[in-house]
Amino acid sequence: MNVHVIGIGLIGGSMVLDIKGLYPEAVIHGIDTNENHVQEAIALGVIDKESNFEDLKTADFVIVSVPVDVAMTVLPKVLDAAGEQTIVFDVGSTKMPICEAVANHPKRRNFVAAHPIAGTEFSGPSAAIKGLFEGKTNIICEVEKTTFKLQEKALELFKSIGMRIRYMDPKSHDKHIAYVSHLSHISSFMLGKTVINKEKDEQDIFDMAGSGFESTVRLAKSSPAMWTPIFKQNKKQVVKTLEEYIANLSNFKELLVNDEYEAIFDEMQSVNKIREILNGMNAKK
Amino acid sequence: MNVHVIGIGLIGGSMVLDIKGLYPEAVIHGIDTNENHVQEAIALGVIDKESNFEDLKTADFVIVSVPVDVAMTVLPKVLDAAGEQTIVFDVGSTKMPICEAVANHPKRRNFVAAHPIAGTEFSGPSAAIKGLFEGKTNIICEVEKTTFKLQEKALELFKSIGMRIRYMDPKSHDKHIAYVSHLSHISSFMLGKTVINKEKDEQDIFDMAGSGFESTVRLAKSSPAMWTPIFKQNKKQVVKTLEEYIANLSNFKELLVNDEYEAIFDEMQSVNKIREILNGMNAKK
Repeated sequence: MNVHVIGIGLIGGSMVLDIKGLYPEAVIHGIDTNENHVQEAIALGVIDKESNFEDLKTADFVIVSVPVDVAMTVLPKVLDAAGEQTIVFDVGSTKMPICEAVANHPKRRNFVAAHPIAGTEFSGPSAAIKGLFEGKTNIICEVEKTTFKLQEKALELFKSIGMRIRYMDPKSHDKHIAYVSHLSHISSFMLGKTVINKEKDEQDIFDMAGSGFESTVRLAKSSPAMWTPIFKQNKKQVVKTLEEYIANLSNFKELLVNDEYEAIFDEMQSVNKIREILNGMNAKK
Repeated sequence: MNVHVIGIGLIGGSMVLDIKGLYPEAVIHGIDTNENHVQEAIALGVIDKESNFEDLKTADFVIVSVPVDVAMTVLPKVLDAAGEQTIVFDVGSTKMPICEAVANHPKRRNFVAAHPIAGTEFSGPSAAIKGLFEGKTNIICEVEKTTFKLQEKALELFKSIGMRIRYMDPKSHDKHIAYVSHLSHISSFMLGKTVINKEKDEQDIFDMAGSGFESTVRLAKSSPAMWTPIFKQNKKQVVKTLEEYIANLSNFKELLVNDEYEAIFDEMQSVNKIREILNGMNAKK
């Protein structure tokens, strides 16, 4: 098996680690604009060797795991270079702009628009870990636009690394993911900002913050280079979720200002059903 | 050792589990307005037997681990009933109102105002776990108002279950904790609300939410009975932190609306230093 990963970071790197584990005969090639990342990935055993676009002709799989703005320009070039039997897939957190970017490409049928819902707050080749995708969901958009035979091969790969598959149109994907992923990142970044701005003496944060704070600001460690283009590409949906979130926070603040504690209790109690939702999520993993 | 825990839940229950582990001869008594909790705690081995206020005269330690509004009325009664050598301490997330409630009590010197920064999102006797306080911080307010000999005994107990001690005045405590704990809870509850309101078909949440969403909404599972009185007692500080948080979110939204992606990148990058802050927190644990 001949695998190429373009952008050797958390997602692409973790994926090829799993592939190498399952298919020891696979040769893992890497392409990255950051030469240090290529060398680091080789040293860490994440990839076997460096490659370039000319080599893609013989690839079985090309994983495009770069920030979503870069994906827009890289994907058409990758498809240009890909062979007849090559499967190219992306892993980006937005799907509409990416699907549009390749919509009229002559090799559109070699492309699978994917979004594996997996990750950590770390980035770069050293963030690659085995088993990251086990029990996670992979959302595939416009599956009907991919050649059936290549679909099958891609699905087999995704399932072999433990992923559940869910099909969705790109617009629904971008709308829903704004709520359950993009908004969480902004809420976390702005929570971090609010506390850092206030507590100039960081010692106080160290000493008083518990696991609850840590949990809510974890995503504020995420990479700005990855997240800025996601917010840009999904601007309309993200602005909408932010407006709703701000309205809910403002309403909560007003309840507090007006001493409406019964209503505050009820608000929190009705949100408590997130327990069952999260239990449901974990039951599937 | 004669220990009484009033309010047998996550914090009080976990504390007596640790005490019983370290001091097997200790007799653990429990008082709870919910008789089911008393029976459950006995069945789970969290407490040895039920007690009542008359028994507090011979107590070495009385742990008052009830919602902070209940603590205001219970603490003076506990001190009324306590013996000369009894150490009474609370574990509440607000300290000013509680310190004021006992300020003029004749047995004020038997009281230690404490806030162990530890917990999970669960509640009730079944939430009690061993080792919850290991490496965590216990904030003690107005330590000078406690008899020196009883201070020493209380500190020995806190240190024996693994806690670091930090002294603080009640006003600073309430101000700082609003940022690193109370605000996190509201951000999490309102994030949960925003997503639940939107996604009437919960299946979509199950399938698309990843570990990032789970991390940011974890605190939305917390008990409204515990948190409503905390927000009430620390209203002024909580409203202030909420206003700052909402302003930061609104500013982020405006940057997005105006396509100021460089500024968005810079915002996130400057908050990334939360990595080092969180690493610093964990290094101490």
